[in-house]
Amino acid sequence: MEFKLNSKELEKHLSKIIPGVPTKTPMTILENFLFEITDGLLTIYATDLEISLQTSLNVISDSNIKIVVPAHLLFNVVKTLKDTTIQFKVQDNGKLLLSTNTGKYTLSYLEATEFPEIPSIKTDEQNTKDINEFTIQGNELKESIDKTSFAMSREEMRPAMMGTLFEFDDDGLRFVATDGHKLVNLLNKKIATKINQQYIVPERAISVLSKILDEREVKVYLSKTHVSFRLSELQLITRVIGQKYPDYASVIPVENEFSLKINTKELSDAIKRMMLFSVSSIRKVKFSIKKDVVNISAEEASIGASGEENVPCEYSGDDLEIGFNSAFLNDILNHISAENEIVFKLHSPTKAVIVVPVEKKDNYDLTMLLMPVRLNN
Amino acid sequence: MEFKLNSKELEKHLSKIIPGVPTKTPMTILENFLFEITDGLLTIYATDLEISLQTSLNVISDSNIKIVVPAHLLFNVVKTLKDTTIQFKVQDNGKLLLSTNTGKYTLSYLEATEFPEIPSIKTDEQNTKDINEFTIQGNELKESIDKTSFAMSREEMRPAMMGTLFEFDDDGLRFVATDGHKLVNLLNKKIATKINQQYIVPERAISVLSKILDEREVKVYLSKTHVSFRLSELQLITRVIGQKYPDYASVIPVENEFSLKINTKELSDAIKRMMLFSVSSIRKVKFSIKKDVVNISAEEASIGASGEENVPCEYSGDDLEIGFNSAFLNDILNHISAENEIVFKLHSPTKAVIVVPVEKKDNYDLTMLLMPVRLNN
Repeated sequence: MEFKLNSKELEKHLSKIIPGVPTKTPMTILENFLFEITDGLLTIYATDLEISLQTSLNVISDSNIKIVVPAHLLFNVVKTLKDTTIQFKVQDNGKLLLSTNTGKYTLSYLEATEFPEIPSIKTDEQNTKDINEFTIQGNELKESIDKTSFAMSREEMRPAMMGTLFEFDDDGLRFVATDGHKLVNLLNKKIATKINQQYIVPERAISVLSKILDEREVKVYLSKTHVSFRLSELQLITRVIGQKYPDYASVIPVENEFSLKINTKELSDAIKRMMLFSVSSIRKVKFSIKKDVVNISAEEASIGASGEENVPCEYSGDDLEIGFNSAFLNDILNHISAENEIVFKLHSPTKAVIVVPVEKKDNYDLTMLLMPVRLNN
Repeated sequence: MEFKLNSKELEKHLSKIIPGVPTKTPMTILENFLFEITDGLLTIYATDLEISLQTSLNVISDSNIKIVVPAHLLFNVVKTLKDTTIQFKVQDNGKLLLSTNTGKYTLSYLEATEFPEIPSIKTDEQNTKDINEFTIQGNELKESIDKTSFAMSREEMRPAMMGTLFEFDDDGLRFVATDGHKLVNLLNKKIATKINQQYIVPERAISVLSKILDEREVKVYLSKTHVSFRLSELQLITRVIGQKYPDYASVIPVENEFSLKINTKELSDAIKRMMLFSVSSIRKVKFSIKKDVVNISAEEASIGASGEENVPCEYSGDDLEIGFNSAFLNDILNHISAENEIVFKLHSPTKAVIVVPVEKKDNYDLTMLLMPVRLNN
């Protein structure tokens, strides 16, 4: 059987789903795309068993097929072709023949029976009471996960924290990520739903999602086991992490009465230099906070080097000395750098510190939290 | 003792010589800069024993010093500072103190006695009869080595080929590099000297040189053991490879009577796709050359895939089938890609092929050479 596709259109589709193909996997079948043509609609799938990506395009074809094609080889051939028509011919001898005006390429294909089943959330059936849904602008969703997801844990000991929490409550949709050292809590008040549910989306889905989102609207469907993100012809389906998310609200202090207002860029530059003097495991940097200046210092005994800087601030509270992990603080600052000024809310050298932007947004509440590290003295 | 430097000026100087600092070395002293102040002139050195980089700048200082300072730590502190004055204080306790308006940084320094001696070519003495010199525009030298050096060998078995040959003869200055599979021979006719000498500049010097060259004029001094490149305040000194360069002229065929003219971009695009179908060790791609078309094909049995393309050409000669290593051919094409059309001069499937640009330049002769690989049939 045969079908035709434009090289540039196919490249656009493949480039969106190639992030779903695992690069190192013991299951070599996953290094392929599944090509399925049903009644003139070609759907191409990629999966690593945790997430699946799929895209659809119309195709003129004389029959239906379902075959498995080497993903990177096909993508690399297609993306180096100029704008041309590719004629696909599925031969009975296990060969897939691609022809253009000037070239011919033969790839081996496999039958689809070995390819894992792609999960789906059936939104077109009657029995959808367990499925929640909402709609969001793609770039808005991207910004929310990009500001949040860096705080996810990489430690397999606590699987619930290896994802980003999507929590629906009366205030809107809340994105939460934490690794126990830092926490981000971003509330989007524009998403108003009647849902009161929590869904934990795993790290890999978040990272692929960030790559494929653009200005287009995204429809999100959420079931007990899977979440699906649909951008017109493109769809990402991921399993959710079936664990209870830790009670993050209880670790956010409500009564941190000391307030330190500081320029984000100045602090961030100083912390980047202090990282050079805090390279051992704990990466400790010390803040000595006074009324209008923070003295920031770090000392690396292993190389006999140290640094300190004074950064102007506005501080209301008792003079305070507090230590942070400079790499974690740098992470926080990198993800709040769009804000001109930020406020640290503090209480004592051992209690979690809250970091918030000075300027409040109508539809967003962004709260970051950083655990201090113990000072020796 | 104390001295002052502007952060941005120092950053500019350090950024030019930091490529001379080895990243992995058992001799940890080489991970440092040598700072030497003599009568108000600060010279900073970096070396990996094979090459040395040095830069000089004026400084207001009350005495002379010679100390050894951690290279990357100093560079990273300086480059993250804004435009400001840095006060350096060399303390007797082995600490170097850097102060700015807002910050203080303490680094450990070492005495200079442990630092290796930096070779030099003494051009200001009377006895310079063994030293040759010439002057060239920096970007012209950069273009010459960039077009040539990719063909250098990485195999330690043949040390002479692990560098680029600078050969002075009656026609001008010739740059030659080869690994036995491919060869580049670039003659610059503008450099007229009375020298008849060969110098082999090692790979690392070539690669660092390519990074630091700009539009400024370069003075090049060549002795039996070292070559020095001087760009006003900046200097690169490298040892030369003290071996005899192979007789490259004898491998360049003079009577390749078949001529294949082809569009560089079209051929290059086709070869990039054929590389996908020639991934095993020999990376074989086959040319079947006829009067006005080359059929280019590759087959990868290990993955059951193959490709072929027809590229239009102008060919005068007997029909010919010849094989190449697609990666080597791709290298050649990437470095001749500035040329719109190229000519392959051929003789037989087993004889070296010459690749030259169609358009001749007044002051340059560029010749590339590629060995074929055997076809099975």
